[in-house]
Amino acid sequence: MTRAYDIAAFRARIGAMRVEDNPTLVKQKSRDFYWYSPVLKRELDAVTADIVVSPTGEAEVIAVLAAAHDLGIPVTPRGSGTGNYGQAMPLTGGILLSLADMNKVKAIAPGQVTCEPGALLIDIDRELAASGQELRMFPSTRGTASVGGFVAGGSGGVGSITWGGLRDFGNVIGLRVVTMEGRPRALDLSGADLHKAIHAYGTNGIITEVTMPLAARTDWIDVIVGFDGFEAAAAYGFALASQDGVLKKLVTAVAAPAPETYFLRHRAMIPPGSSVVIAMIAPHSFDAFEAFTRPSKGKVLFASHRAAPETLKGLPPNYELTWNHTTLRALRVDPSITYLQARYPPPDPLKLIKRIHNAFGDEVIGHLEFVRFNGRIDVAGLPMVRFTTEERLDAIIRAHEDMGAMIFNPHRYTLEEGGMKQTDAIQLAFKRETDPQGLLNPGKMIAWEDPSFDFKAGKNFLFPGLEARAEAARG
Amino acid sequence: MTRAYDIAAFRARIGAMRVEDNPTLVKQKSRDFYWYSPVLKRELDAVTADIVVSPTGEAEVIAVLAAAHDLGIPVTPRGSGTGNYGQAMPLTGGILLSLADMNKVKAIAPGQVTCEPGALLIDIDRELAASGQELRMFPSTRGTASVGGFVAGGSGGVGSITWGGLRDFGNVIGLRVVTMEGRPRALDLSGADLHKAIHAYGTNGIITEVTMPLAARTDWIDVIVGFDGFEAAAAYGFALASQDGVLKKLVTAVAAPAPETYFLRHRAMIPPGSSVVIAMIAPHSFDAFEAFTRPSKGKVLFASHRAAPETLKGLPPNYELTWNHTTLRALRVDPSITYLQARYPPPDPLKLIKRIHNAFGDEVIGHLEFVRFNGRIDVAGLPMVRFTTEERLDAIIRAHEDMGAMIFNPHRYTLEEGGMKQTDAIQLAFKRETDPQGLLNPGKMIAWEDPSFDFKAGKNFLFPGLEARAEAARG
Repeated sequence: MTRAYDIAAFRARIGAMRVEDNPTLVKQKSRDFYWYSPVLKRELDAVTADIVVSPTGEAEVIAVLAAAHDLGIPVTPRGSGTGNYGQAMPLTGGILLSLADMNKVKAIAPGQVTCEPGALLIDIDRELAASGQELRMFPSTRGTASVGGFVAGGSGGVGSITWGGLRDFGNVIGLRVVTMEGRPRALDLSGADLHKAIHAYGTNGIITEVTMPLAARTDWIDVIVGFDGFEAAAAYGFALASQDGVLKKLVTAVAAPAPETYFLRHRAMIPPGSSVVIAMIAPHSFDAFEAFTRPSKGKVLFASHRAAPETLKGLPPNYELTWNHTTLRALRVDPSITYLQARYPPPDPLKLIKRIHNAFGDEVIGHLEFVRFNGRIDVAGLPMVRFTTEERLDAIIRAHEDMGAMIFNPHRYTLEEGGMKQTDAIQLAFKRETDPQGLLNPGKMIAWEDPSFDFKAGKNFLFPGLEARAEAARG
Repeated sequence: MTRAYDIAAFRARIGAMRVEDNPTLVKQKSRDFYWYSPVLKRELDAVTADIVVSPTGEAEVIAVLAAAHDLGIPVTPRGSGTGNYGQAMPLTGGILLSLADMNKVKAIAPGQVTCEPGALLIDIDRELAASGQELRMFPSTRGTASVGGFVAGGSGGVGSITWGGLRDFGNVIGLRVVTMEGRPRALDLSGADLHKAIHAYGTNGIITEVTMPLAARTDWIDVIVGFDGFEAAAAYGFALASQDGVLKKLVTAVAAPAPETYFLRHRAMIPPGSSVVIAMIAPHSFDAFEAFTRPSKGKVLFASHRAAPETLKGLPPNYELTWNHTTLRALRVDPSITYLQARYPPPDPLKLIKRIHNAFGDEVIGHLEFVRFNGRIDVAGLPMVRFTTEERLDAIIRAHEDMGAMIFNPHRYTLEEGGMKQTDAIQLAFKRETDPQGLLNPGKMIAWEDPSFDFKAGKNFLFPGLEARAEAARG
């Protein structure tokens, strides 16, 4: 097995920093939740770094990047590895830069918090509690995900029903990123410049500090509302999402039989055949929520503030039934499940959802997340799919697109193929400036790797570095 | 001059309560901002109560209502008299029930505050500051308006861009209302029952306690953005309103020449011919606001956090340039100005606004308020109108309706004619229960006064009691 990178020289350059080179442990840290996707599982299974480095501050990050730059070693940043598309997986090996030890909350002010990138979202919220504030949004992996990873690899989640997505103006206030150069610079980004680095997978800078906006801390009430059919659940979810006066952090709809089959700890409360809406409601909006719900077809199956303490003790929080956790719960019961990421655009998302739901039967199990988008309620989908073959998966995706849904393919490891299927000129230009040698998280930005790639040709991007590395590992 | 009511007997019944019967002072207190409307000014100019009573607590309210009920004397409640449609004007005289002395903030909790009805909105916010909270919304008359009057006579205002209107679920949490019966009852309303009494002008119960939801206290930055034309200002306002991640409390657009002509204290900063967007932005969203604004056609003319203290000292807060204060400022400069209340419904409010704006030239000066409505951005209008005759005013209203705008006629003193032009069955049913003799704020609910009134006949409702009273006063 050949080693292309001079790791020994790198170690000598960085001195006393914490590193890990035990191959088993390095491989563990080189993973995220890519195995949600049978496609990525096949493609990325051999991926591993050569070494994991864990800096404790920006000066050490700069030292790592300077050394790696001089030695031509790729660097892939990692928060907690809770991504789903290999965001933090080092496709060509090299250095895995773990930001987990940079986890301090540095400053709390009215409306904003400044943290190191490795700070866990749940820990940030804990530290914010005394100021009566909380993060506007977090992924369902809140308990283990870091704020830097969320900004670099996520797009929104719990809280998006009120605030929209991470890339909307105002949902990230500031980022400090270090460049991959002989003399790395630390750049402070704000305003429109934030778009250079948000959701760029660390391909154009290493985030060393994050400033996030806050909302009023709220003791959210977890509620689950049951419906006889998915169509009724979806319609109710959309209408609840549209209640501007009802303060909420989450509105999710999940089709039968997922709730009774996959939500193991909640099973006792879910009548067979139920589709459900899962929500988080502010206590001072609960009366309004109930008044709104009463004339609907739904039945409140669960409200956490009324549940017995012994019941609550056994239950995960509602947000761990939603977003990517819905798929996770399904996978734990049925390993053949995978998923899609969809958007059902106006003018009539509910009609489109019904059509798609009816088209696939049990092969595609509906899962909707209601969010704000450009000032209105938008419906995102993370439908669960019973996987058979990659060809069938592609056919299901095409059928969705043909019916009018937009698919953000979670079975691709590149920014473009998982996103808008086009070059992000701002992120590309920033990479030219911050990473002229293309050493940051290689293989994730097609626009950099292969400027002539034709997104309309219907072919997957295959990163040559990934193939070469896999071959070398096998050899 | 005949007096129909036995005020002496009433005074004997209520004992030592504070009352006012000096006719000049009583007439002063029998007024609101009805004179915004030349129509209401003509119709209501003679209106006055016989006596003003100022209870200091619910027990005294009950004593007043019991006595008035037994003596058959009408009772019209009043907060601060900041309404615009005669909401608090006693059309048939009788008792004006001033709630101004019931102004205590009774309880502050996370997310909600409970007050007596006469508490001023600005005072409530002052008392909330220590808890890091503020009211979700207030009218532009925040400095003088009471919370009870707001709930009974208002519909939304500053804050509606985030939270929707007062009648949306969740924007009022609780009301306690006293009935007009021989033995008045105090009823606690919550959930869907709130719709019985919100925006009912006190026709079906006297509000003695209000519980309102709260938001995080924010040191709002007042900004004014200038544009060369109203169309550009309207488009920018709509787009700013649609920025889900930018925390804001107000987005207003006002067409030239109103800003330079009527905003006297802001004149120096407004280039001639400018249409403006007036907004309140959270400090932690200001960077995002600027990043959003920079590529627009607008120019930031004013941002309060950058203004010199001596500049700020001379300026009213931004919200006192908006909602009904826009008209007020116009009236102070040009007494011939009056106004309309409009909604420009989907699918293309901006196109409709442009069409209307072009149709009337200088006779109708555009004024838009962006609000949330059913989960999306809605455009309300309070256009200023150069008044000539009532016939012309009606023609302008009809032309608006013919082009597709909805008009909520502010030149009418009844609930229905100023609103949806139909019976509110819930409020009517509640009045049957709470005020069987029809003594509360008579003449305001057509459904009660004249169940056979045909809203489609195109005729104004004329309350016979008002005419009789005016005649008696003249006689």
